[in-house]
Amino acid sequence: MNMKNAQKKQAAEATLKYIDSDMIVGLGTGSTVAYFLEALAQSDRRVIGVTTSKITSQRCAELNIPIVDIDEVDHIDVTVDGADEVDTYLNGIKGGGAALLMEKIVAKNSRENIWIVDSSKVHDTLGSFPLPVEVIPYGSGQLIRQFADKGLFPKLRRQADNNQPVVTDAGHYIIDCHMQTINNPYALAEYLESQVGVVEHGLFLAICDRVIIGGETLQIQSRQQNQMI
Amino acid sequence: MNMKNAQKKQAAEATLKYIDSDMIVGLGTGSTVAYFLEALAQSDRRVIGVTTSKITSQRCAELNIPIVDIDEVDHIDVTVDGADEVDTYLNGIKGGGAALLMEKIVAKNSRENIWIVDSSKVHDTLGSFPLPVEVIPYGSGQLIRQFADKGLFPKLRRQADNNQPVVTDAGHYIIDCHMQTINNPYALAEYLESQVGVVEHGLFLAICDRVIIGGETLQIQSRQQNQMI
Repeated sequence: MNMKNAQKKQAAEATLKYIDSDMIVGLGTGSTVAYFLEALAQSDRRVIGVTTSKITSQRCAELNIPIVDIDEVDHIDVTVDGADEVDTYLNGIKGGGAALLMEKIVAKNSRENIWIVDSSKVHDTLGSFPLPVEVIPYGSGQLIRQFADKGLFPKLRRQADNNQPVVTDAGHYIIDCHMQTINNPYALAEYLESQVGVVEHGLFLAICDRVIIGGETLQIQSRQQNQMI
Repeated sequence: MNMKNAQKKQAAEATLKYIDSDMIVGLGTGSTVAYFLEALAQSDRRVIGVTTSKITSQRCAELNIPIVDIDEVDHIDVTVDGADEVDTYLNGIKGGGAALLMEKIVAKNSRENIWIVDSSKVHDTLGSFPLPVEVIPYGSGQLIRQFADKGLFPKLRRQADNNQPVVTDAGHYIIDCHMQTINNPYALAEYLESQVGVVEHGLFLAICDRVIIGGETLQIQSRQQNQMI
């Protein structure tokens, strides 16, 4: 196991201390969450999961973790997810695995959000990871032109094997924006949300409460504090 | 033909004077647009259409109006559409026919937007027509709860025959918000756009340039003027 994977596994196991039996737990998507699902299945915690992708639902079935639809619960206690990049305010970029839409829906409905990452994901400023934007296929070519004019360096995400556009679980496309540095993530989020054809974007702002990096935990006092930045 | 339909037909025919041959014309959806498509097909204008729904694409095929995908053109000269409600600033509500998403994508990419309506659609303040909001099915129950808390009087749109949720051309649900009066449509639009799970809403603000009601035309000087309201 390389250093990154060792950190992810360690962080996934460290996360268990925030999970109690009978909790309703949002379950993210990706390689770090895969370690957490294994740790959860091997633990004595008996939780109900709310998943964020078809792939996580399948993995829960294999591990005998019971899951329910988000609309069958009146709350989610805590959601555990990975992140593609996170800054020191615990704002982040997600969507490298094309599951950002359902991840954000679950995160926004959660009382607490924990991200588990390896230390390579933590940066002072977001943007070195290309920002995924989930869009309606119809008119996506026009949006790409518009994003280019706006200086977002957009690129339609395509499948490696056949060069066809990647289609998300909800039937949308992903445009990755290669800006390198995002100086004002809140302004960028507002711009993206107001664009017709944009379903959701990978900026997760004032959502995460706690980041677990290997054995270390970064934590903020409240989301409100974060929102004031 | 009743009064409303006579007005719609008259307006549809009056709209032809804004259409020249060789224009790329956005084609809306609905009963009023159906009159316009017929008038267009019977006229000597040879245009290329960009459609906003499967049903309009089908009707164009029947009427021999050539259509292209929105991403095959670099601009749209003018879009002709109906509206469910329009105020005196030419802001409007659309989406009664569940085609608001593609209608808004086409409208936003159009140099000019013309709406054709009958006089029953024109009101001083928007809101008597329930505002359609297109949403991701996953988590839509949570959104309905949230909209109810916000005082939007939300109701999931269902099919009359089998009570199943209406599914849009893009695979989403529609929540109709029965507010009766929308005092600040811009603030409401901003709220809706920032909600995770909302794909698009039926408030078309600062989009329409000209409304044709029967034989009469309402017109604004510029969209900027409208945006300043």
